[in-house]
Amino acid sequence: MTHIAFQPAPRPVAFVGSGPGDPDLLTVKALRALQTADVVIHDRLVSDEILALVGPQTRLRNAGKEGFGPSVSQSDINTMILDEARTGARVVRLKSGDPTVFGRLDEELDALEAEGIPFTIVPGLTSASAAVASLGQSLTKRGRNKAVRFVTGHDMQGYADQDWRTLARAGEVAAIYMGKRAARFIQGRLLMHGADPATPVTIVENASRPDERIVEATLATLPAALTEADITGPALLLYGLAPRGAAVAQTLPRAQEMI
Amino acid sequence: MTHIAFQPAPRPVAFVGSGPGDPDLLTVKALRALQTADVVIHDRLVSDEILALVGPQTRLRNAGKEGFGPSVSQSDINTMILDEARTGARVVRLKSGDPTVFGRLDEELDALEAEGIPFTIVPGLTSASAAVASLGQSLTKRGRNKAVRFVTGHDMQGYADQDWRTLARAGEVAAIYMGKRAARFIQGRLLMHGADPATPVTIVENASRPDERIVEATLATLPAALTEADITGPALLLYGLAPRGAAVAQTLPRAQEMI
Repeated sequence: MTHIAFQPAPRPVAFVGSGPGDPDLLTVKALRALQTADVVIHDRLVSDEILALVGPQTRLRNAGKEGFGPSVSQSDINTMILDEARTGARVVRLKSGDPTVFGRLDEELDALEAEGIPFTIVPGLTSASAAVASLGQSLTKRGRNKAVRFVTGHDMQGYADQDWRTLARAGEVAAIYMGKRAARFIQGRLLMHGADPATPVTIVENASRPDERIVEATLATLPAALTEADITGPALLLYGLAPRGAAVAQTLPRAQEMI
Repeated sequence: MTHIAFQPAPRPVAFVGSGPGDPDLLTVKALRALQTADVVIHDRLVSDEILALVGPQTRLRNAGKEGFGPSVSQSDINTMILDEARTGARVVRLKSGDPTVFGRLDEELDALEAEGIPFTIVPGLTSASAAVASLGQSLTKRGRNKAVRFVTGHDMQGYADQDWRTLARAGEVAAIYMGKRAARFIQGRLLMHGADPATPVTIVENASRPDERIVEATLATLPAALTEADITGPALLLYGLAPRGAAVAQTLPRAQEMI
């Protein structure tokens, strides 16, 4: 018998979306995955309340990738996942929000596929859904917009170029991820393409978390609003949407919620 | 004492997303709302498995709005919600997917707002997230697309006109809701604007449900593929995405899933 015979077959690695931060916005499936995992390899942005839900036997490993700061390289994360999977452990790769939306999922799936290790994806709530719910608005609305875009403020080259020309038209709605540092760039591009400076842009910081903040701005005031409000947490920009008055009153004092 | 004094104050109406159909893709918060509701007013597309999760005291009311067939009018649905809320009942308005994505949420919020009845929104997983997870793909991917669109195949006027010109460019990704009947129209518009006929379009019927089916097509073959596969359930078109081979093998036999 050779040593390799002792290596158990890898189980499928579960790529699980943690949702935007509120543990109650985990899916039932995600919660079960956390509770039954041998190891959870998580991103920096996953909230402590969610990490507290793992099973007593579960090891936590921080993959700690940050947009700008010091970080574990993607290659190191891939190696971490592969090494854990090869032991036969139940591996959960926990990603903030929905792993399929700006989650850099494919790099990790490619690494598993190259090694013949199976995987499964448990989708999660992306932060745009939580943020717009806090505004009491919809991402799409009959008579206003029959399409919505999720765009990123950053890509590998720096500020991400987007289809600003069509976004500049009246009634367009977009959820802008990682748009905080790119705010002045985004503002400039949209205004250059003729967007109305009065177009509402709502900043939602820490969507769904106890420290969620909603800051109303317009395209004209966006960079100043980010500075004045001192937005330091993860923030989503909802372009083309202002809060509905009644809903904000409902959502801000969380104790008033029905459930 | 007048009769009106016996009327309890309305509690906030909870607009709850049921997710795409798999009960395990409900959020914890949605599940709790269903279990504690006095009445759940639900759409036709909410799955029976989910409706089975309501509390023993919960009344179910079918708002039964369909895209084309006979339906309860929006005005009747609004009245139903208002009447239940005015009794002081814990009302859950349960909508398939995410209420903020093609969920006709605003009409109902407007009706509540006009009557001064508060509300709260519990976001749900939209079917695009579940569908793309079944494909083993991402809605966004570095080096391919830094934006994704959710578009509808229908609006109040019939087939919805969209920004076909920019969608026709290489590498674009869109989740097309209610695109089944509009498939030939969408195909024609995209080809007219120069889209590659070989662009992958994947049909996901009954995303996340036990009878989920994934049908691979291209822009050229889309209408024929819909007919040949006899797609009769709710279907999402993932434009610009083909299934990742390994993932389809993983997701089709659900018993193989880790969790």
